[in-house]
Amino acid sequence: MIDFAGKYDPQPFHLDDEAAAQTYFGRLSASGWHTGSMAMRMMVDNMKERQQAGLGSPGIDELRWLKPVYPGDTLRCETEVLSKRRSASRREMGLFESKLTVINQHDEPVMTMRSTGLIRVRNPDAD
Amino acid sequence: MIDFAGKYDPQPFHLDDEAAAQTYFGRLSASGWHTGSMAMRMMVDNMKERQQAGLGSPGIDELRWLKPVYPGDTLRCETEVLSKRRSASRREMGLFESKLTVINQHDEPVMTMRSTGLIRVRNPDAD
Repeated sequence: MIDFAGKYDPQPFHLDDEAAAQTYFGRLSASGWHTGSMAMRMMVDNMKERQQAGLGSPGIDELRWLKPVYPGDTLRCETEVLSKRRSASRREMGLFESKLTVINQHDEPVMTMRSTGLIRVRNPDAD
Repeated sequence: MIDFAGKYDPQPFHLDDEAAAQTYFGRLSASGWHTGSMAMRMMVDNMKERQQAGLGSPGIDELRWLKPVYPGDTLRCETEVLSKRRSASRREMGLFESKLTVINQHDEPVMTMRSTGLIRVRNPDAD
């Protein structure tokens, strides 16, 4: 957590318990970019398990950091597919919109986001 | 780039030129989470230079990854403040909405996002 913050988000509350005690965070907590990156890793591992080939993402909407993530927390992800369609111009590609929720060991959502994912279709010759 | 992707976004096009050649990316390119994290670092450095005390962020809207970021690219950021207000419940806190654009050495925007930032006001006793 400190290593990530030192490189990418060196704000005092991501580096030091005492500094964090003076803020909303209360104690040392993860950079939101770190939480998002850890969630990405879980999504990629899940895609591999399911033999899905991601093709990138055009972006994210409504990302919300709801609660601090503290050292020792255990995070898991839930994903809901909101919509999906075949690309009109690229027959080998599908687009899907999903809502991700990152949840800690107390079953509290710590982060949510909606994003669009690009993915290789299993059979590009199918209608 | 490979180190970050290995930890947080191990999709083939973020790890390997050959795998990336078969995708939209064309060649090895940065994880979007890496690009966002690098932009965050630039924003934190800028806040420090200006002696601004960030207090976290509730979230991001309309994050868009517009172009791949390749090894050797040089990125810079431009930020536009869209709105700002004092917190009604916490007098020591201000909220501002800003639009960030991350731009490469060819002056091409590679990422944009809108986000809300929390920041300590300079004089909490002022009206």
